[in-house]
Amino acid sequence: MLGYGTVGSGAYRMLEDNQASIQAKTGTRIEVVRIGVKDAQKPRDLPSELFTTDLDSIVNDPEIDTIAELIGGTDPAGRLVELALNNGKNVVTANKELMAKHGSRLVHLAKAKRLDLHYEAAVGGGIPLIQPLKHQLAGNDVLKMMGILNGTTNFILTAMQQDGADFAEVLSDAQAKGYAEADPTNDVDGFDTMYKISVLASIAFGRQVAIEEVHREGIRSISKADMKYADVLGYVIKLLGICEPVGDRVRVRVHPTFLPKTHPLGSVNGVYNGLWLHGDFVGDVMFSGRGAGSDPTASAVVGDLIDVARNMAIDGPGSALPYDPDMPTEPITTLQSRYYIRIRTLDRPLVLGKIATAMGQRGVSIAAMEMKTIVPHEEGEIVFLTDYATESDFREAVASLTAEVGVSKVHATIRVED
Amino acid sequence: MLGYGTVGSGAYRMLEDNQASIQAKTGTRIEVVRIGVKDAQKPRDLPSELFTTDLDSIVNDPEIDTIAELIGGTDPAGRLVELALNNGKNVVTANKELMAKHGSRLVHLAKAKRLDLHYEAAVGGGIPLIQPLKHQLAGNDVLKMMGILNGTTNFILTAMQQDGADFAEVLSDAQAKGYAEADPTNDVDGFDTMYKISVLASIAFGRQVAIEEVHREGIRSISKADMKYADVLGYVIKLLGICEPVGDRVRVRVHPTFLPKTHPLGSVNGVYNGLWLHGDFVGDVMFSGRGAGSDPTASAVVGDLIDVARNMAIDGPGSALPYDPDMPTEPITTLQSRYYIRIRTLDRPLVLGKIATAMGQRGVSIAAMEMKTIVPHEEGEIVFLTDYATESDFREAVASLTAEVGVSKVHATIRVED
Repeated sequence: MLGYGTVGSGAYRMLEDNQASIQAKTGTRIEVVRIGVKDAQKPRDLPSELFTTDLDSIVNDPEIDTIAELIGGTDPAGRLVELALNNGKNVVTANKELMAKHGSRLVHLAKAKRLDLHYEAAVGGGIPLIQPLKHQLAGNDVLKMMGILNGTTNFILTAMQQDGADFAEVLSDAQAKGYAEADPTNDVDGFDTMYKISVLASIAFGRQVAIEEVHREGIRSISKADMKYADVLGYVIKLLGICEPVGDRVRVRVHPTFLPKTHPLGSVNGVYNGLWLHGDFVGDVMFSGRGAGSDPTASAVVGDLIDVARNMAIDGPGSALPYDPDMPTEPITTLQSRYYIRIRTLDRPLVLGKIATAMGQRGVSIAAMEMKTIVPHEEGEIVFLTDYATESDFREAVASLTAEVGVSKVHATIRVED
Repeated sequence: MLGYGTVGSGAYRMLEDNQASIQAKTGTRIEVVRIGVKDAQKPRDLPSELFTTDLDSIVNDPEIDTIAELIGGTDPAGRLVELALNNGKNVVTANKELMAKHGSRLVHLAKAKRLDLHYEAAVGGGIPLIQPLKHQLAGNDVLKMMGILNGTTNFILTAMQQDGADFAEVLSDAQAKGYAEADPTNDVDGFDTMYKISVLASIAFGRQVAIEEVHREGIRSISKADMKYADVLGYVIKLLGICEPVGDRVRVRVHPTFLPKTHPLGSVNGVYNGLWLHGDFVGDVMFSGRGAGSDPTASAVVGDLIDVARNMAIDGPGSALPYDPDMPTEPITTLQSRYYIRIRTLDRPLVLGKIATAMGQRGVSIAAMEMKTIVPHEEGEIVFLTDYATESDFREAVASLTAEVGVSKVHATIRVED
């Protein structure tokens, strides 16, 4: 085992606690013989002989047949995983960043070596997502996939929604409680979701989606005003990873989204994650559960280890399913979407017609409107939902509002999924 | 392929429609070379040479490496599946009844022959349930599992709930629309759900649960009055398959259930199915989607066929995971549950204290109460929710109501899950 943090300690505990039932299922005992850590002297509740700071010694140990990589990040995790595979060891990893960046290469290597490389824990914590996509749903052409894949941001958005609090307030509360990191960038700016949806898209479409091709927006700009308008209009705001085929290409994006309250993902709250997908034969399928944390993530790691053990017991050739790199992608600019806009403007009675005209000239029609203050000649807020429009048209329309129409500020624009 | 009904024709069409993407995923072409049917002369949109009424000839054909058994029932399906395995052929089946009755024996046979025997389509239509239980969730001790596993009854209950209609009315409507069979016994009396929860329980607990040990109640007795009271009290009524460990045994049951509206299964409506489970490490996980129908079930069958093809491509030893027979079971009588009771009685002001006393003497306390008519001295309806009580105590308490207290009729008793 490489790493003994939240996930590693959970996986170790699960292997111990459920040893008897796991042995019954696999016909073999999974034994953790060595754990690689940064500081071998740190007081832990396990014998200190188990630990070493020499991670290479584990990956090079001929007595060890399987490596659980639970360090995270690409360095040294990537080098160690590659070395393990080259040394003929099966690998189980929880590393979304590594798989998003180097998945294609690593899975090809595992396949060539007839080894297992499983990474169920990389996406959705304990929720089975990756293997069902690879296996039970493999016959489908995936027509759309949307996921709430980051527990921290879903916790923050849910708290904002339920308590009417602002982003900064909820974030510091989440940090105090340990639900958000001191540097929350990876979560709140959508990097974590980007890695995860990129991994899922690569499996669903059979070729690796480069993370540079994923359109990414985080949730820092979401205000309690947006939350309130969403509620009034029948929506909740969720940070979604979304992918969909566009001809032979795929568009992958991460952004806050207006989602109808009645959508199955609309009630996935707090630290829960969920994945909804639409396949051409299966129709709508939905998975949800705890997407992070020690125990749920351990569940996925141990499930993968059990599969490795079973495969070794029957002397199987490994079941790594390789996918090629360089999935062609479609940019966000060609997206057809509905949009929410919140603007602040003076003298609304006069400006309203101008706004509708300026947007209409760019191909964006207004479908619904809410106003907050209704004192004439004072500055007030107006909120619109548009009809379907092309992203590039919408951006031009938004630019025209401040440039031509006299809107003092466009406070927020958020895409709407219906 | 054995059978060319709803599922068979869907699977055939999916293999044709998605041939290119399936070939890309498996590296091999899955070709249906022969289809066994009852009537080979029936007009179909496929060349008649594909069809034969001699099903044994398919199972004995040395050119055929894999059988998709899509006939249903145990005879001749069971004999043909067994013959196929004995002839060294992989088997994919959608047959819940066969797996519930003979699963342990068939999976042991497949394992001994180093063959694949997959049956994802047997439970939950297109929703991945069986393989995630066997693999990604395998490290968990399952502490409870509850499923809406029959689309017909869920369609009926949802229609009763949403339209305020009575069971008989909705059933004949569903029969007219083709959502329910002319003889609806298999669905509405809970047999279908019994097969399915028995299969899931056998996988989750590693030994086959005999269907004779499953407590089974259907939905015929559910009235629109019960639906209305459920709604007032914050519940919906769902036909659930439920299993839970009790020491070293497992209790498996199928019955209509009061489920809180906020439970994830509470919003699984119409023909959708859902499975919720609680594992000791993964926590709560929920799956939902279309649980029946041609296309969703085809999705599961084809997913299994893809796995067979992949396994053959790497010359793998098959991945059948056997489980032993004779799981020890716990009867319903020791269940601790809350209950809903609807009774009709005369002269309520006087009888209320007697009811509470009679029930209290049997260890059943009343937690909530609703009354319908409030004219004194006339017959009216009273509805109670009890606190947790043992099933055997509850049954005695119910018997005492008509025997001793003067309640004219106990119209309904339904278990409550919280």
